Amino acid sequence: MGKGFADLLGYLRSVNDLTAAAEVLEWDQETYMPSGAAEARARQLATLRREAHLRFTDGRIGMLLRTAATEVEGLDPLSFEASLVRVAMRDHEKALRLSPDLVAAIAESTGRARNAWRTARKEDDFDSFVPYLERVLELTIQKAEALGGGDCLYDALLDEFEPGMTTNVVHRVFSELRAELVPLVQVIAERPEPDDSFLCQPFDGRAQWDFGMEVLREVGYDFDRGRQDVSAHPFSTSFSITDVRITTRIDEDHLPSGLFSTLHEAGHALYEQGIDAGFEGTLLADGTSLGMHESQSRLWENQVGRSRAFWKNWYAKLQRTFPDQLQDVEREAFYRAINKVSPSLIRVEADEVTYNLHVMLRFELERALVDGGLRVRDLPAAWNAGMEEYLGLQPESNADGVLQDIHWSLGAIGYFPTYTLGTLMSAQLYECALEALSNLEEQIVAGEFQELLMWLRAHVHRHGRTMSASDILRNATGSFITASPWLRYVRQKYSEIYGPLR
Amino acid sequence: MGKGFADLLGYLRSVNDLTAAAEVLEWDQETYMPSGAAEARARQLATLRREAHLRFTDGRIGMLLRTAATEVEGLDPLSFEASLVRVAMRDHEKALRLSPDLVAAIAESTGRARNAWRTARKEDDFDSFVPYLERVLELTIQKAEALGGGDCLYDALLDEFEPGMTTNVVHRVFSELRAELVPLVQVIAERPEPDDSFLCQPFDGRAQWDFGMEVLREVGYDFDRGRQDVSAHPFSTSFSITDVRITTRIDEDHLPSGLFSTLHEAGHALYEQGIDAGFEGTLLADGTSLGMHESQSRLWENQVGRSRAFWKNWYAKLQRTFPDQLQDVEREAFYRAINKVSPSLIRVEADEVTYNLHVMLRFELERALVDGGLRVRDLPAAWNAGMEEYLGLQPESNADGVLQDIHWSLGAIGYFPTYTLGTLMSAQLYECALEALSNLEEQIVAGEFQELLMWLRAHVHRHGRTMSASDILRNATGSFITASPWLRYVRQKYSEIYGPLR
Repeated sequence: MGKGFADLLGYLRSVNDLTAAAEVLEWDQETYMPSGAAEARARQLATLRREAHLRFTDGRIGMLLRTAATEVEGLDPLSFEASLVRVAMRDHEKALRLSPDLVAAIAESTGRARNAWRTARKEDDFDSFVPYLERVLELTIQKAEALGGGDCLYDALLDEFEPGMTTNVVHRVFSELRAELVPLVQVIAERPEPDDSFLCQPFDGRAQWDFGMEVLREVGYDFDRGRQDVSAHPFSTSFSITDVRITTRIDEDHLPSGLFSTLHEAGHALYEQGIDAGFEGTLLADGTSLGMHESQSRLWENQVGRSRAFWKNWYAKLQRTFPDQLQDVEREAFYRAINKVSPSLIRVEADEVTYNLHVMLRFELERALVDGGLRVRDLPAAWNAGMEEYLGLQPESNADGVLQDIHWSLGAIGYFPTYTLGTLMSAQLYECALEALSNLEEQIVAGEFQELLMWLRAHVHRHGRTMSASDILRNATGSFITASPWLRYVRQKYSEIYGPLR
Repeated sequence: MGKGFADLLGYLRSVNDLTAAAEVLEWDQETYMPSGAAEARARQLATLRREAHLRFTDGRIGMLLRTAATEVEGLDPLSFEASLVRVAMRDHEKALRLSPDLVAAIAESTGRARNAWRTARKEDDFDSFVPYLERVLELTIQKAEALGGGDCLYDALLDEFEPGMTTNVVHRVFSELRAELVPLVQVIAERPEPDDSFLCQPFDGRAQWDFGMEVLREVGYDFDRGRQDVSAHPFSTSFSITDVRITTRIDEDHLPSGLFSTLHEAGHALYEQGIDAGFEGTLLADGTSLGMHESQSRLWENQVGRSRAFWKNWYAKLQRTFPDQLQDVEREAFYRAINKVSPSLIRVEADEVTYNLHVMLRFELERALVDGGLRVRDLPAAWNAGMEEYLGLQPESNADGVLQDIHWSLGAIGYFPTYTLGTLMSAQLYECALEALSNLEEQIVAGEFQELLMWLRAHVHRHGRTMSASDILRNATGSFITASPWLRYVRQKYSEIYGPLR
């Protein structure tokens, strides 16, 4: 490549190094940092983020980008060089649209709103949260206006998390989904429930940890390029393609929590570990969208981890690990228990079927907040009405209702839909993998995941941000995003558990 | 304070945040980082260090310093404001004296020399290391010339680690020390040795860890503002006054290793945790010199941790922790074993008495290297002659001789003397603490360290870098650095173990 591109690459790498450093500090904050260090760490993170932002919006990078752009003209758009220039240009232009004042105002107001949210949730006092959320919403709308693009303000917000996705598409796909899902959940709710009481008894934390670590090794998580630790809220993070870490949370009284959060985060991490090594240290070494990221976590957590095939291999080992708790539980009973469907109030505790109704409710509400059709102070009523409509439930408190999620206080509006978009994409991808790898289920029964991982690497992971989520999906499955494969998957799986569902 | 000082403070804090971030990344590198991440981490660290250096040598800081300097005129020189301007000016001017080319050349040559040193030591092949060390020495001399100050090149190097210290003073103090120490060690070597064989048997690592953690809590290490982890080479590090961490290394076949490295690092950490909270996030929130730092680690490791008083309280607990290994070992026998003096080849395994002879040899050699009186290729012969003279020993290989330390390969020439300067200062300070706190030994027998810690906080820790090591010492003890208190301490302690020593 030419000197212009080399200069750009060097410049972008140094910005990327600052961002990666911030992510190490955040990982440390959630895993090992002593409690007294919170204030100093906040200051250090603010400095790193500000320095990275300053460098990324500096006049120099505009010049570097223009020079490099002329050098990569005519190259394959999917090449490393052309992709890096394209993605950097897009990110740079978006970053420039936000004034430093607005960025600072958002940081300040979300910092306050986050604290206010914690207190409000603890004390079940939505009113005290209202002015903070109003301020965050006001600034989020300003941000959407500054970013522009799309047909409505919500498009601009969505694009931050799911580049190229539009409100219209989400609305159409979610409508398709809701039309089938609401009655499906109602039917299931009337059927006899599987017994899952045996999942809630004491399970030694160390043994849970060891079992999870063995699962991680077997699914292909590379411990030379990652590690697992414990944190209050499980997450995955990447400091480079050679350092992709996950955390889990072990609940000693509930077996599935730790196990499935480990598999979920492993899905995220396998994505990042599978990115083309040549993209190291650049903007391309990242998932292409939050939805695509979630497709990978959901695929390993649900399509693989909650499958009958998976437990045909792993259940005997789990029984040996917890003989007192599981020796009298048949494998099929265990399989049904971990797939019990039950409308509930809390999103993060929901089963894979009802989960998407929680997401859809949030999408409807935040869209209405942004376009002005719903006022912050009317949120609780709208929330409760939605819960009744979608899940047939009424929260007894706002703490278990509208105050349950941290996202809005952080200004993460436009984020929720990616959870369900990812779920739908996971089913689209897995359906194709099942077709491409004729004996995939047998492999999983045999405890072999290598071919599935290689298929995902080839079709999804390796591309990093060189391809959009929609291009990856179309190349891999021949289709745009659609709810049908996931609905097929759910119908088939849950018919076997609950009896015929149509 | 005026706006000029406030601007300077903000600017320096952001530089400090970048440096602190680098230190978090280095801590992670030594404790938890997966092996595959080495290359990416080296790049990230280089970027952070370079950014911090660029910001600290930027033209803007010169202007900020000049403005702030006029604002602090007339203030108490020990005030936060006057001290920060003074220390920042000193550091800034020193940083400016090193050209970016020289800094880069040193970074590159030490990177290579470090790898060459590892190989040379492993293969006991000094010749292969010669060209690398020659290059490092050449650049170190250039660095000394650029830094200037003092009467000789070695003064400039020493000043990097022990500000204000001169080669002449070190030479005089070390001569005083050597004159008494060499014959003392010879006398001890002729006396019957205490039996320490029981220290080398299997000691469960988990139990060692737990015992060390209890000691840490009792000596006053604040776990809300720090933590202990495991690393190959124990170290302490500080990311802020509220986050001062240590590491230890547990040897399951040798009890003293982990225990005393924990106490040693705790001494460093107590220093950093005790700095005036108002200095947070600035250049003042650091030890004033490496020697003063080492005085704190040695004091807790040796004067406290290897004292009879300490074990009067802790030995019963240690016996309960390791009954199989220690139930038949009397407390006094244990005390003698952990204080066994024995000339040996390896510095880091040396007892507290012979340790300083190792340091003095290195000081003589590196001084001769810098002033041209010794060529790199003649180092092994000079080393072996020195070992014979100081310790009466001849290494059988260069790996156990001149190649044993990493320091020179890193360009850390002028560093070694601070180990012994710290040892001497620890005895000066401890002698005064014993005088000031009339029943200090009884307190230690009772397991109480609070008053000692408060005395050290008041006289040493809280000052951070506002006072020089020599001012701290003079204020606390009324004396300059001298070997007499340490020689008195050693004579008294070891006379009780080995019989009258003069």
